[in-house]
Amino acid sequence: MSLVKPTHTGYFFGQSVRVLAERLRAGSLTSVELTQAALDSIERLNPTLNAFVQVDAPVALAQARKADEWLAQGQDLGPLHGIPVAVKDNIDTFDYVTTYGSAHFDGFKPSCDALCVKRLREAGAVIVGKTLTHEFAYGPTGDRSLQGAARNPWDARCITGGSSAGSAAAVASGMVPLALGTDTGGSIRIPAALCGVVGFKPSYAVVPLDGVFPLSSSLDHVGPIANSVEDARLLFEVLAGRACAAATEPRPLRVGWIRSGSFGPVDAEVDQQVYQAAKQVFGDTLHEVADLASMAAGMKETLLMLQRAEAYDVHAERMQEAPQLFDPEVRERLELSQEVRGWQYIRAQRAQQHYQAHMARLFEDYDVLVSPSVPITAPAVNAREIRVGEQDIDVRAAVLSYTSPWNLTGLPAINLPVGWVKGMPVGLQVIAAAGEDDRLLRVMVELFTRD
Amino acid sequence: MSLVKPTHTGYFFGQSVRVLAERLRAGSLTSVELTQAALDSIERLNPTLNAFVQVDAPVALAQARKADEWLAQGQDLGPLHGIPVAVKDNIDTFDYVTTYGSAHFDGFKPSCDALCVKRLREAGAVIVGKTLTHEFAYGPTGDRSLQGAARNPWDARCITGGSSAGSAAAVASGMVPLALGTDTGGSIRIPAALCGVVGFKPSYAVVPLDGVFPLSSSLDHVGPIANSVEDARLLFEVLAGRACAAATEPRPLRVGWIRSGSFGPVDAEVDQQVYQAAKQVFGDTLHEVADLASMAAGMKETLLMLQRAEAYDVHAERMQEAPQLFDPEVRERLELSQEVRGWQYIRAQRAQQHYQAHMARLFEDYDVLVSPSVPITAPAVNAREIRVGEQDIDVRAAVLSYTSPWNLTGLPAINLPVGWVKGMPVGLQVIAAAGEDDRLLRVMVELFTRD
Repeated sequence: MSLVKPTHTGYFFGQSVRVLAERLRAGSLTSVELTQAALDSIERLNPTLNAFVQVDAPVALAQARKADEWLAQGQDLGPLHGIPVAVKDNIDTFDYVTTYGSAHFDGFKPSCDALCVKRLREAGAVIVGKTLTHEFAYGPTGDRSLQGAARNPWDARCITGGSSAGSAAAVASGMVPLALGTDTGGSIRIPAALCGVVGFKPSYAVVPLDGVFPLSSSLDHVGPIANSVEDARLLFEVLAGRACAAATEPRPLRVGWIRSGSFGPVDAEVDQQVYQAAKQVFGDTLHEVADLASMAAGMKETLLMLQRAEAYDVHAERMQEAPQLFDPEVRERLELSQEVRGWQYIRAQRAQQHYQAHMARLFEDYDVLVSPSVPITAPAVNAREIRVGEQDIDVRAAVLSYTSPWNLTGLPAINLPVGWVKGMPVGLQVIAAAGEDDRLLRVMVELFTRD
Repeated sequence: MSLVKPTHTGYFFGQSVRVLAERLRAGSLTSVELTQAALDSIERLNPTLNAFVQVDAPVALAQARKADEWLAQGQDLGPLHGIPVAVKDNIDTFDYVTTYGSAHFDGFKPSCDALCVKRLREAGAVIVGKTLTHEFAYGPTGDRSLQGAARNPWDARCITGGSSAGSAAAVASGMVPLALGTDTGGSIRIPAALCGVVGFKPSYAVVPLDGVFPLSSSLDHVGPIANSVEDARLLFEVLAGRACAAATEPRPLRVGWIRSGSFGPVDAEVDQQVYQAAKQVFGDTLHEVADLASMAAGMKETLLMLQRAEAYDVHAERMQEAPQLFDPEVRERLELSQEVRGWQYIRAQRAQQHYQAHMARLFEDYDVLVSPSVPITAPAVNAREIRVGEQDIDVRAAVLSYTSPWNLTGLPAINLPVGWVKGMPVGLQVIAAAGEDDRLLRVMVELFTRD
């Protein structure tokens, strides 16, 4: 895998945070050097990729100098100490303008950090800038925002996927080794899959959302984007405010392959590539799960109802007072959102509980479920329809189809890069039972750590 | 008070359950005799009052015989053993038809008892029949249902108030000594006030709602209607499945009088009568609370949003498939209910929490709040507007105005009869902090038990 490189690569491409952390402590590297490398990579690549929307070299370097001083004084804040990290622009930072990708917040500077950012700083991380988010995180393509479209490091004509568009592009291209994303229907895993990096959506409510601009409060999650599962876990531990539990797996893993087509059409080559990778990793423990297709439409409808009602709650005044400041596509979605009825929302809440209970029962038979993260490779920027097999399908619906069920049910799910189709990355999604974040990461570290 | 009698009175008028229970145990009375007395009273009075919609003498007498047998065998199930009790017709009973006051459920027989009914039976109570509910409990007047209007025992031309219309009329007229009601906006306290009996709405979720037909799940409550606070407490203990805590009041009660007009206009005579009664009972401990009027409109709107969305959730299929089976007034309300938007419901949920927190702070300064339960006396059946002072106001809005704030905030509230205006009963409402049900009942027993 490490032999293939995206078209656009920076200093951190393929670098391990663990190794960088060792070098920082050995004195062969400083945080200022790492931060400068990040800034240089951004300067070189960002005009093409549009991953970062705010960078402030003096602010970043001041943090790095402090990190170096502390380390010199023997004050070691842990594995992220001195490591450059990017933060998605829908997450508040007191020292960087935070636009939420919207003209409504052009130039806005929050008064304080989001709780997850506060934890990052307390862990000694250097925040080098803010990454492009699809406007208000309300879109999975990453090509509509105040700052335009993010571009895929593997082919800049293509989308990154979204809404954590810039974070995935920044890590995939090696501008930074780690980035924060948010995920309401797949917004971490989709761009991670389309850009070929690891992206982890934790269990619901495991990482606090304080200071993260809400899209849909019952579906929103914060999580890490990284080069490897190992690095993703380091960042997850900081975000969750606790170390992952260590343990050994008591028995062979029971792995359920979600039958292709269950949640919508899958490109045949993507399907084959992901299935082969899963076979290779999980071997004989891989079994096809009983059909989930019968629930797919209901789950999708339920998620839509929750997301729409909750999103309109967030934006009602902006829609009334300055609708012209929204991107037309986002505005159109909010207009639909306004229409959801209260009784439909109540039923969606009840249906969500039903699906959560159903999935909980499924995990009595399986330790993890696996599927493609995204059923296609990255389409062109601004494309809105794509041909999959014999069908023309909506790009947004397609990219969300295999990720959003795990937002509705709140289960931990990770994207793992498992190769390429026609030169573009494809990802395997692995899903675990609610609260099994540590175990999912532990097992994936074992299975996916490069030699 | 006991010198004045309603026009229509039965055996249990002014009777104490505690005294009846003593006589049952002394052998000077049997449950069969009490039950027969209830059946005779119902037979005589019900053609005028329309309080009961289902009575089954053999079923009731069989329960009474069993109660007598048990008592003869020394098996004493507690203070309600052998006592006739009426159950509102929106509460499931396996042995009586349960219509919820609606043509949709004409002749419907539930497969099992509501949990509160199960507790009643386990306490040895004799269920003598089902009492009229306003259709689906969706109305505070008690004059629209499959079985028509209930009639006020003090003047049969007037409403009982609702929706626990029949339960209040049955107790007020002495057909039974105790009855179950439900209260979503005032449906226990309003008819209790207009009929001159005690009605208690416990704290939210203290009495389980299983088997009670829902009106609005975040506002619904089950509670007792009785001749005295003492009797209401006996029934409450059975419904809640636990004995009330005993204690002595550590200091003089701090009583807040809710300034007249805070939640809507109050008839001057009602206001005077209730205020004088409060002054007489609470004396110098009575102080006017800081104005709540600024919150009244917001609280009313919040309750409406919650109630409407939740009610339409319950009735959506019936509204689509057989709207003609609804009473036109209830159907009109459901048509409005259909319109509440999801984002408005979400905001109403948030506002409910805000008001709950606000009221919790108010109870740092007061032990109880008091006000009229209902700002008018019972108007004529089918009247929909009434003159209060200089204003013509909607009867429904008027009767709900002082009770519904305590459904929104989930606080325990009790109606106590405190006299008459032009020959019709008026009630004092006493409200306590969330969870202070036992203390509220204990203090009211002390203050309101007749010599």
